[in-house]
Formats: sequence, structure tokens, C-alpha cells
Amino acid sequence: MSHILIKNGYVITMDGPPIRDGVVLIEDNKITYVGKETQQAEQIIDANGCVVMPGLVNAHNHAGMTLFRGYADDLPLKEWLEEHIWPAEAKLTGEDVYCGTLLACLEMIRSGTTAFADMYFYMDQAARAVEESGLRASLSHGMIELFDEAKGDTDLKEGIRFAKQWNNAADGRITTMYGPHAPNTCSREFLAKVKEQAEADNIGMHIHVLETKAELLEMKEKYSMCSIHLLDGIGILGPGVLAAHCIWLSSGDIDILAERGVNIVHCPVSNMKLASGIAPIPELLSSGANVALGTDGCASNNSLDMFGEMKTAALLHKVNSLDPTALPAHQILKMTTVNGAKALKIPAGQLKPGMLADIIIVDMQKPHLLPNHDLESHLVYAARGSDVRTTIVDGKVLMEDGIIKSMDQEKVMEQAAFAAEKLIQRVKEQSN
Amino acid sequence: MSHILIKNGYVITMDGPPIRDGVVLIEDNKITYVGKETQQAEQIIDANGCVVMPGLVNAHNHAGMTLFRGYADDLPLKEWLEEHIWPAEAKLTGEDVYCGTLLACLEMIRSGTTAFADMYFYMDQAARAVEESGLRASLSHGMIELFDEAKGDTDLKEGIRFAKQWNNAADGRITTMYGPHAPNTCSREFLAKVKEQAEADNIGMHIHVLETKAELLEMKEKYSMCSIHLLDGIGILGPGVLAAHCIWLSSGDIDILAERGVNIVHCPVSNMKLASGIAPIPELLSSGANVALGTDGCASNNSLDMFGEMKTAALLHKVNSLDPTALPAHQILKMTTVNGAKALKIPAGQLKPGMLADIIIVDMQKPHLLPNHDLESHLVYAARGSDVRTTIVDGKVLMEDGIIKSMDQEKVMEQAAFAAEKLIQRVKEQSN
Repeated sequence: MSHILIKNGYVITMDGPPIRDGVVLIEDNKITYVGKETQQAEQIIDANGCVVMPGLVNAHNHAGMTLFRGYADDLPLKEWLEEHIWPAEAKLTGEDVYCGTLLACLEMIRSGTTAFADMYFYMDQAARAVEESGLRASLSHGMIELFDEAKGDTDLKEGIRFAKQWNNAADGRITTMYGPHAPNTCSREFLAKVKEQAEADNIGMHIHVLETKAELLEMKEKYSMCSIHLLDGIGILGPGVLAAHCIWLSSGDIDILAERGVNIVHCPVSNMKLASGIAPIPELLSSGANVALGTDGCASNNSLDMFGEMKTAALLHKVNSLDPTALPAHQILKMTTVNGAKALKIPAGQLKPGMLADIIIVDMQKPHLLPNHDLESHLVYAARGSDVRTTIVDGKVLMEDGIIKSMDQEKVMEQAAFAAEKLIQRVKEQSN
Repeated sequence: MSHILIKNGYVITMDGPPIRDGVVLIEDNKITYVGKETQQAEQIIDANGCVVMPGLVNAHNHAGMTLFRGYADDLPLKEWLEEHIWPAEAKLTGEDVYCGTLLACLEMIRSGTTAFADMYFYMDQAARAVEESGLRASLSHGMIELFDEAKGDTDLKEGIRFAKQWNNAADGRITTMYGPHAPNTCSREFLAKVKEQAEADNIGMHIHVLETKAELLEMKEKYSMCSIHLLDGIGILGPGVLAAHCIWLSSGDIDILAERGVNIVHCPVSNMKLASGIAPIPELLSSGANVALGTDGCASNNSLDMFGEMKTAALLHKVNSLDPTALPAHQILKMTTVNGAKALKIPAGQLKPGMLADIIIVDMQKPHLLPNHDLESHLVYAARGSDVRTTIVDGKVLMEDGIIKSMDQEKVMEQAAFAAEKLIQRVKEQSN
């Protein structure tokens, strides 16, 4: 058995009060002890001056889109999608998705994310990248039926193949979901088919819901009801669902989402950057819904740093409600650890015996993190992904003192830069 | 003469198109050449893989407040101020402000800020810290008259003494302003007195304006007009004024501020965290007003990283106007360089001959800054202060490749942590 002992840290367990000069023992891929008493281990990690905490969960991502970081910004949504993102995505290859997802994994490991939920194309290649990187992920093949039954059948077939092939792969680090794109891009019949399949296979569902006001208006026009009522009518809504965005909700919608136990993923940076709107997160939390945080893809953020996402979430809802007590630091940390792990069905998000050893160590001895009045406040309001020193997933050290152990960082960066360059060349050749 | 040549960088001049593989020559404290031709110099800095750009300007700060970072967050404004910040400030010593300001300078140098505007107490100590750090600053003694004529006289006397003693100190790196706190904390008569003094001495004025809705209501109640009309009636508003926040403006107010040439400092993170409101920045910019960016003090941010401020500014106004084209990346960079320098009356903010050599070098060869489709986008949407490699102020290298040259980083950190600890002890003793 491989034992790792992390000692001398300020341990934020998310399962009770923090432990000063605490100890965390890892055996294989699990946490077996958290407390004050020192333990024997093969490897000792000294976390003096650092916070030791559960790894961050990025609950909505399109990791392969790192290749589009900075490719098209500050544009009207329609122009951004139709003239830039979609034409570029049409030229994507599986190798591109592999390179882009590897770059995303590298960025996530460096900034303290230990698990993420992903929906994209060429998902075998994405899964290969996740497997190599050492990260944990819930992956889904994005199915955009577009009211075309034949396309829907092909998509679902591929979705099923991928989900079954990769569920519990990479020693259980990879799990899968079905990924119907959104209620306004998939027909009611298709969504019902996916729901049946998901139920039969006991597999969850990752879906975009009410990201834009346009979706709300389309749904009302088409079905005389909003997306939430449509999904609920099909019987989709339940604890197996990961619903990204959920911006344009009525108070009745909020109650339904909470009652059904749907996991909501708030993506404040993407929602702000695309001017999609502001999700009613304080109301969702008050109603008891499980709300996690996500970055969305790199084209609409343009970062996968969950520290930035945490600060933005805390700030946005304060100003939106004109209430400075909205979404306090501890609640934000809970959304990014406990709630994220629950949404992805991972026994993690807290440091306690029996949990998976997905742990990060954050260096707090930096000029911008002093003085140490309140380290939870610092994590949300002052820290950056670059303050993460060590990232452990499934009991394996993926980054130690800033050095990536699981990948060849230079090679991943070179490959991604090269793939992006070639991709843009192909897009330009097409448009000429 | 001391010559520094920066070569091989991607030079964002903010005075025309970027220069790939560009060269910047510094002689003493000024830029003497920007272009493609190599030059002779004593010191060569290789900026391969980096952006070379004007240093960032933080146009509204209370630097000494770094000691309160994380001291009180997520509280109602009144409780935050009256039960936490003010009692702690009452126990502040000059030495505390020195230590806090040094820590702030260290954080700013590390994150690419080369000049800042500050308003606080014990300003001799703040100035001493700025002088030692090598940074450039516009400093003002905060004058909170509180409708007490005697207090006003004492404050103004100290404000004048400080302003005259330190104007153009530290080889011109330190300039001064008068700092009347706000229109609702200073009487009309006091503001008029400060205005006369400022005019006589040809010294600018740093003031908070309409940060809260409460100020607007108070002013209307007391004077039957808003702060802008009151200030304009006194004749204060002009290009010498640095007006922080400016949130609760009418469209008429916006026109007045633009016509008078007032410099407005937008502090989006602080305004969001304290739930103060959202300033009409797109409207101010459209009207031709000079708008810069600032972090505000560390108690309400809790970071002095202008990269975070840039991203938040870009995001906030997109979602607030539901327009994804609002405040594009280049405009944000202009606010943080050109506009900030203009607001502080510094011949800087652009890389061109004759400008002060306030320059930063940002490492773009990092996983979260790839691929390189658009480096201006990356600076605003993906970079962090920790990506700054080298910071040059007044022709002197304050940080090179991440190593602080102008200060003893460990000592500054230790001193600040110690001062904060002692300060909180004094506050606790008082309340027991």
C-alpha cells in the first residue's frame, strides 16, 4: 500500500472546523485519517504555511475548447457562434480535442481542480487525455439533435457507445453521462429517448438549461411552456441531472429544480462574458438546490481557474442583490467542493476518512495572501490558481511544489499551440 | 547614463499596433526608442515569449489597508464599517501604515502595477514606503471633516503640509493631491476651502463620489441636489479631480463629468463586494469621460491585482447591459494604462519615446495563456498578476524574473504579518 502523509497544514476539511497544524493520511486512493496525530507513511508532504483542502470541482466544461482561448471575444453572441466558433469546431479533429483537453487538464491541475464534468465531441480522445493526465472527470458525448431524427439516432448511438465504453475507466477516475445539448436544440421526443436510456443504464445526464433568454422565448413560442416544465413533463429532472447555467428561471422553476434534486452548475464568468444573464443562485441555494460551480469552455471565460470563478460568483450575487452578505466565502467553498462532488457523484469534496484522496495544497505565504486573519476569505477573495502548490487526485501526486508529475508540461503546451495553429489555418483555407 | 534594452518581446505600445519581436530602449528614467531595430545598452532583458507593455495604473487605493485583508467580509456595510473597519483603523499607528503600504507595494510590483493613487492616514509613513519600494504614486492625506469646522481646519492643515512636503519627492515618483473624503462626509464650505487651496497650489484632488445610494439620498435630503451638482456648484469639477466610484449618476451627471474633464476611477470588485452598485461605465466612456480602474483598499476587494480588476470590469458591464460587446479587451487595457496615467498626471501609459519608463513584462508561455490567438484578450481574460515577470518603474528594475530587487520581500511580509497581529490584539483589548 502507498501511504502519503500531509502534515503541518491548515486543514480545511469542509466537514467541520478547520484543523490548525493538521495531518491528512492517504492510503492508496483514499483518505484514512484526518486530525492532529502524526502517522507513519512512505511519503511525507510538509504543508507548513499552506492550506490543505479538498480539490476543486469544475462542474461544467468543454475542455477541448482551450484551443479557442482568445480566438473570438467581445462579439455579439450570434456572430461569435455562427461566424467564429462553429466554423472552427467544424474543422476540429480528434487529435485537436486530445491536445486541447490535455492542455485543459494541465491548466486545471496547476490551478487546483481535481475533477471536472465535460461535454464535447471526439470524446474518446478527451477520455484518453483525462486518463493520461491523472485527473478525475465525468465525460459526456454532446448530442445536438437539431430536430433531425436520423442525426438524433446517430448521436444517441455514439453517446451510448462512449458512455458504456468509458464508464469507470482509468481505475474509476472516468465516469460518463449522456449529454443532450439543450431543450431548444433537441426535440421533446429525443429528450424522452435519452431519459429512458439513462434510466435503463443508470447513467446521469449533462445538459444546458436556460442559458439564454432566447431559449426561454423559443420554448414558450414552441411549447407554451419553459424548459423546466418541458423537462419535468418528460420526467427527466432528478438527482442524476447536471443542469448547466439555469439563468432564466421563474420562482416556480426554482422550486421544481430543488424538489427534484437537480444539480445546478453556475458559470458566472461565462454568463457575464456572453451577456447571457444572471442566474438566481441565492434563491436556488435558499430553496435547498445543490448548486456547483463551473467555468464553461475556454472560449467563453477564457480561463479554467476555479479561484477566479469563486471570486466572481461571490461578487456577482452581492451586487446583483445589493446585499453584501450574499454568497459568503464558506458557502462559495462548499459549492466548489462538497456540492461539486455531489453533482458529479464522486465520494470526495470533504477531507474525512473514506473519501477519495482528491486534495490540494495552497501556499498562503505570499504577499497577496497576508495577513492571515481568515484563510477561507483569502481562498475566495485573494488567492489565484497559481497559489496551488500540490495537487493530488485518487491518491496520486499530479503536481508537487509546482512541478507537474503526470505529464510532460512542455510537450503538452507545444502540441496544443501547434494544433491550434493548424486548426486556424484550416478554417482560413475554408473561408478563402 | 544607464541604458536598458528590452528585446524579442511582443510589444503592446498602446500607441498604435503591437510590434512583434520589438525592442524598447530605456535611458535613465525615460523610454528613448520603441521599434524593431536593435540598440546598444548596458543591460539586456530578453522578453522572448512575453508581452512588453506599459505598467498598470491602480487609480484608487488605500494601500495601508492590506493589514485588513480578510479581517471582515460578507457583512452588511454598516456593521462592516462601524463594528470592524473603523474600530481597527482607530488603533492604527504610523508604523502600521508603513508596514501595510510596503506590503501593498510588494503585491503591486509583483502583479504589474507601476503607479497608484492613494488616500489614507499617516501619509508620511505611506510616502516613506512608496519611496523605498521604487513605485510611483499620487498620495493624499484623507480629510474627513464630518461637518466639524475645527476638525476640518486641522485636517486641511495636515493635508496641505503633507502635499507640499512630498510633492515631487523620490525623484518625482511621488506626487500629491488633496483628499477631501466625500461630498456627504465633508461640508460644502469645507469642500470650497479645499478647492481654493488646490487651485492656489495647482494640486489635484482625490475624492470619493456617489459610492452608495445612501450618499445620493443624503445629498438630496440635505441639499436638494446630488453630489455632482453640489461639487459643480462649488466649481470643483475639472481635469485635476480624481473621482472614485461615481456609481449613482444620472445621465445629466454623466454629461457634467465628461464636460468638466473629471477623471473617474471605476472600482468594480469593491463595488460588487460591498454591494454598492454598478457604475454606468459604458455611458461615461461614450460621453468621452476619462475612466481609469482601481482596486480600492484591500478590505473591500481583497486583492490589489489589476489583472483581476480588468477581467471583472470587462465582465460586469457585459452582463449588466446584456451586451457582450461592451468594454472589449483593448478598451479595458486603455483604461488601465493610458487613462490611468492621464488621471494621475503621469507622462506614461504608452510605450513611446519621451514617456517615463514604467514598463512590465508578462510571461505568456504558460498553459493558461495558450494558444496565442490574441494576446490582448489573454491579458484581460486569462492572465493573472502572477504572470508578470519583470516590473520597471522610472527606469529601475523593481522585479526581474519574479525576484524583487527593491525590497527585502521576506522582511516586508514578516513585518506586515506582525503589525497586523499586534493591531488586532489592540482592537480586542479595547473591546474587552
